[in-house]
Amino acid sequence: MEKVSIIEVSPRDGLQNDPVFIPTVKKSKLIYLLAEAGINHIEASSFVHPMKVPQMADAEEVIKSCAVLNDIEITALIPNVKGFERATKFPINEVNWVTAATETFNQRNIGISIEDNFKEFTKLKDKIDQTKMKMCFSIAVSFGCPYEGNVNPDVVLKLVERAVEAGADRIGIADTIGIADPEQTFRLLSRVLEVTGKTPVAIHLHDTRGLGLTNAYAAFNAGVRIFETSASGIGGCPFAPGAAGNLATEDLVYMFNRMSIDTGINFERLLEAADYAASLSSKTPLGRIRQVVRKKII
Amino acid sequence: MEKVSIIEVSPRDGLQNDPVFIPTVKKSKLIYLLAEAGINHIEASSFVHPMKVPQMADAEEVIKSCAVLNDIEITALIPNVKGFERATKFPINEVNWVTAATETFNQRNIGISIEDNFKEFTKLKDKIDQTKMKMCFSIAVSFGCPYEGNVNPDVVLKLVERAVEAGADRIGIADTIGIADPEQTFRLLSRVLEVTGKTPVAIHLHDTRGLGLTNAYAAFNAGVRIFETSASGIGGCPFAPGAAGNLATEDLVYMFNRMSIDTGINFERLLEAADYAASLSSKTPLGRIRQVVRKKII
Repeated sequence: MEKVSIIEVSPRDGLQNDPVFIPTVKKSKLIYLLAEAGINHIEASSFVHPMKVPQMADAEEVIKSCAVLNDIEITALIPNVKGFERATKFPINEVNWVTAATETFNQRNIGISIEDNFKEFTKLKDKIDQTKMKMCFSIAVSFGCPYEGNVNPDVVLKLVERAVEAGADRIGIADTIGIADPEQTFRLLSRVLEVTGKTPVAIHLHDTRGLGLTNAYAAFNAGVRIFETSASGIGGCPFAPGAAGNLATEDLVYMFNRMSIDTGINFERLLEAADYAASLSSKTPLGRIRQVVRKKII
Repeated sequence: MEKVSIIEVSPRDGLQNDPVFIPTVKKSKLIYLLAEAGINHIEASSFVHPMKVPQMADAEEVIKSCAVLNDIEITALIPNVKGFERATKFPINEVNWVTAATETFNQRNIGISIEDNFKEFTKLKDKIDQTKMKMCFSIAVSFGCPYEGNVNPDVVLKLVERAVEAGADRIGIADTIGIADPEQTFRLLSRVLEVTGKTPVAIHLHDTRGLGLTNAYAAFNAGVRIFETSASGIGGCPFAPGAAGNLATEDLVYMFNRMSIDTGINFERLLEAADYAASLSSKTPLGRIRQVVRKKII
């Protein structure tokens, strides 16, 4: 039976843009519910400056609360050196370094140029190699940018190549604003997988325009086996206008279940976690299958 | 530029299950708006018994009102001989004969066995060959049945083969209850296209479980170039429990636009038609992109 891995990002990407501060205990409860559903890799928080993303001000506490979980890989997003220093004080499994495929987005999101951002990555990668932690290199707006529009896939490819050379433990290709189409997804991810060799590649999808699931299927066809999604489909990047929610984890798991592809996740328990995620969010979640199940259509 | 055809079914499948009778003039207006958007093939009504589907009691009037449209192919659904006789009094372009892939659904939907239904089809096909009309052979519940569950693809294939031999002018493969998954869609439609030769094949999709668009993409990958969809995603079969709305035409057109595939449809005008379709329906439409555009996210 074919297998795929899901990295759950609702505690970070699902909540970070929510205007109402969600108590730490509720964030931790969401993480526990996700873990109980069989999700074994969770992006739990972001070590971003609390002035920039107040919702993530409790990153330390959230990450600490993950220490009780066994066999769950915990990732924390780090936007810069300061975030790296905060994150690596904790026994997390992976830090997720983010760059962008366009200069404008990188400036607005991180405040420096792509080149300077990449230099930081290589410096920190050398440091992290002395620990047991891994370091993922994620590329935001890989399919389209709210400021620059179309993104040249060669720029993404070049960044991927350089990150792999620099020893990235995982590559993340993000459709931050949910603008990708399935053909574009298939083409870009096919090319990415050609240059990454044994370095794992994840796709991070948003469902802004209803194409999230179709893009996931196209990425699967291209050979991608790691998917970053958010329970109930809450989410959106604070620096990406129009970035509605992430692809809902349960929508993807439902599709893979129907395709007889093993996710290792208990669908019923996942729906409970998704219900809880939805209850924490101020937004109307984008996820589809939860509505169908809750209305007892199936 | 690659091209696809869209057959709009909202005036029939989109409205037939609506509990509130929609005045004929509104149905005709919907058809005119769809035609203005550049849709050149519309399933306008169904010559089903008005006691069984009261919403379609005005089939004659709706079909008559289509006479003013130029260069638009008009299809009427016919469930039986009586429907055939009613439909063929009008200068429509195509009648759509429906069978089901399972005996139980065929009995509930049409009241006879698949075999008897097929005999009727061949008899009527001989009659229609003496006119200028075409006759489509559609297979309901080709991917799963609300009464019998899984459907054997060999049964669908055999029906397709026999219908092609009997001279069907078009084959319709319907996911009546929106249960298909993309792999199943790809496999079945690949096999269907192998046996149909030059006979055109359409896929008819519902979006009950959020997989409609992904299944459309999978069918496209298999080689399908004709899609039956419903503006705004209203719809559902009265004899198929749990059959929520059809795949929204504008969601599909948006995807094809992004993929640089020509649908011949004006997206803005289509959205206006979809708004109108949604306004006629008692249900919450399933379509996604219309919500996004109307909220000015894009």
